[in-house]
Amino acid sequence: MAITKTVGEYVFGSGSFEQLADLLRPRREIEGAPVVFLLDHFFAGSGLMSRLPAEDDDQILMVDTTDEPTTDSVDGFTLRVRETCDREPAAVVAIGGGSTLDTGKAVSNLLTNPGQAADYQGWDLLRHRGVFKIGVPTISGTGAEASRTCVMLNAEKNIKLGMISEFSIFDQLLLDPDLTSTVPREQFFHTAMDTYIHCVESLGGRFRHPVADSFSKEALRLCRESLLEDDMQSPGSREKLMVASYLGGSAIGNSFVGVVHPVSAGLSMVFHTHHCIGNCIALNGLDEFYPEEAAEFRRMRDVQNIPPPPKVCTGVTEDQLVQLYDATIVHAKPLANALGDRFADILNFDKAASIFRQL
Amino acid sequence: MAITKTVGEYVFGSGSFEQLADLLRPRREIEGAPVVFLLDHFFAGSGLMSRLPAEDDDQILMVDTTDEPTTDSVDGFTLRVRETCDREPAAVVAIGGGSTLDTGKAVSNLLTNPGQAADYQGWDLLRHRGVFKIGVPTISGTGAEASRTCVMLNAEKNIKLGMISEFSIFDQLLLDPDLTSTVPREQFFHTAMDTYIHCVESLGGRFRHPVADSFSKEALRLCRESLLEDDMQSPGSREKLMVASYLGGSAIGNSFVGVVHPVSAGLSMVFHTHHCIGNCIALNGLDEFYPEEAAEFRRMRDVQNIPPPPKVCTGVTEDQLVQLYDATIVHAKPLANALGDRFADILNFDKAASIFRQL
Repeated sequence: MAITKTVGEYVFGSGSFEQLADLLRPRREIEGAPVVFLLDHFFAGSGLMSRLPAEDDDQILMVDTTDEPTTDSVDGFTLRVRETCDREPAAVVAIGGGSTLDTGKAVSNLLTNPGQAADYQGWDLLRHRGVFKIGVPTISGTGAEASRTCVMLNAEKNIKLGMISEFSIFDQLLLDPDLTSTVPREQFFHTAMDTYIHCVESLGGRFRHPVADSFSKEALRLCRESLLEDDMQSPGSREKLMVASYLGGSAIGNSFVGVVHPVSAGLSMVFHTHHCIGNCIALNGLDEFYPEEAAEFRRMRDVQNIPPPPKVCTGVTEDQLVQLYDATIVHAKPLANALGDRFADILNFDKAASIFRQL
Repeated sequence: MAITKTVGEYVFGSGSFEQLADLLRPRREIEGAPVVFLLDHFFAGSGLMSRLPAEDDDQILMVDTTDEPTTDSVDGFTLRVRETCDREPAAVVAIGGGSTLDTGKAVSNLLTNPGQAADYQGWDLLRHRGVFKIGVPTISGTGAEASRTCVMLNAEKNIKLGMISEFSIFDQLLLDPDLTSTVPREQFFHTAMDTYIHCVESLGGRFRHPVADSFSKEALRLCRESLLEDDMQSPGSREKLMVASYLGGSAIGNSFVGVVHPVSAGLSMVFHTHHCIGNCIALNGLDEFYPEEAAEFRRMRDVQNIPPPPKVCTGVTEDQLVQLYDATIVHAKPLANALGDRFADILNFDKAASIFRQL
């Protein structure tokens, strides 16, 4: 049984973004070095950007999250920090959704570990603690703020894999539900569903971790309150979903996902579908494995007045089906967690192809 | 809004005690110094004691928990460590219930901060991070494993107060539910109720912290499953109550208790009632403020076949009632959390005296 780590230090609450300067002050005093802010490009020119507690010599880098992070994009940011700053920064602050948070974690790690992002895709490959890192999520659901990974696409190796390491955990979080008030409605819903999905996958699997189970159950309770009984974007629901995302991220670090994430990863590799919408597309077609959850997803969609996810596999070719299957079945751990060691007999090519054709 | 801290690193699971040596190895390598084990005297000569991963020069100190920790007892342990070990220990490992865990935290802090325990009773008085500390609870309920305090009686000043500081948080926890299998049944129940009580107090108060609320709700769910629907000492329930205790401790660090703890503190100061049984005695007589919770407590007692708590106030004198009231009403924060700023009008002397007379 391995040691479990999550972020043990956080500020939570409406308006707490104003405390970012206070969180940074001791870091600036100890290190005597500038701070690097990585900000989701969604906030370019926004009020949030003008409220960044940036000082002279600090660096503000905009993260284009049109596509998900790649090893190349992470290497690019790392290089820009190195070229501008001759010292190790006092802190890296990542402000945005899962892509920006993951980029911030990866850059922080690469500033203290030699080489390139691709060198550290995998389990426990980092040798040194990264630069002190603070995560500030502006959308709730991915759990990236609490997880011990930072996922990157690697085009050369055709893999999507994170730097899975205790060093990929943020040192502190600033959780301000006000920051999620400007998220477009469909994106808000699909991202919230990420928490719902990884928690039902975790609880439906064979592997059990009692602390993760508790985090997952409470996260699901909050998802249901917010998505079935209220407007998901009300202040109260945004607060609940921010807690749910943190708990779900803490849970999934100590457990495993199931069938949804591998299928979604297939879509991501072949069609470049983003993580959260990909999960929704997958769950929507996985009634055979998750009958109650797929139905509840559709109920949540109805309550929140969100249209069905787009069809991505219309006209899928046989070649693409092979690619989709390969990129799905490679995820042995979550599939075994959900279906047992003989998962490839259950989710064989024909079964998977019939599922994909409907997505 | 202050920053929240809890223990972010832990090993959880049946049999995980065997991993204590693995947790200590990196500390030994970095520090090149011995380890100090503080072990609840309940385990003197036990199998657990023989399984301690102690090496040459390590120190094993037995903690007599007949009475709760005092500033004097903590100073005594600190002196013994200093006299035996000319270096800072590599780690302090506290193995036991709340009293032992709190003693371990306090000793760890005093090994790096000059002066005596009494100098640090209060809020944020410690200047230096303590010796690396690992908590190993052997009974579930107090939440001491996750809290940011270590409570000590101070006879000279007639107060019961902790070193409330981020430095009073364990660096790592080892949570092995097997260790709670030998707890005497009544003590097991009354200690489990500590989690139940501080969670209902927190959720019943005016102050709200959404993360603490989630921790409290999930902890209560686990308490109810274990105490109403199962034998509380079954392996499954012991596991759940260990999670509940950790969550409850994490919750209470970010919120406030209510009326039960102040009344219990009064009993503690006047009759030296231990914390957990004192809470049960108090809740059992506080139907006016906690009607559903007091009734649920008695249902749990019935299900688990636990006798009512002893009467401690039979024949209480007027002088004692004054002392009880003074030692209760001094807890302004929790009382205001439960009853509002005019708490002293609601819980006036006559009201409190009528409650105490029935305890």
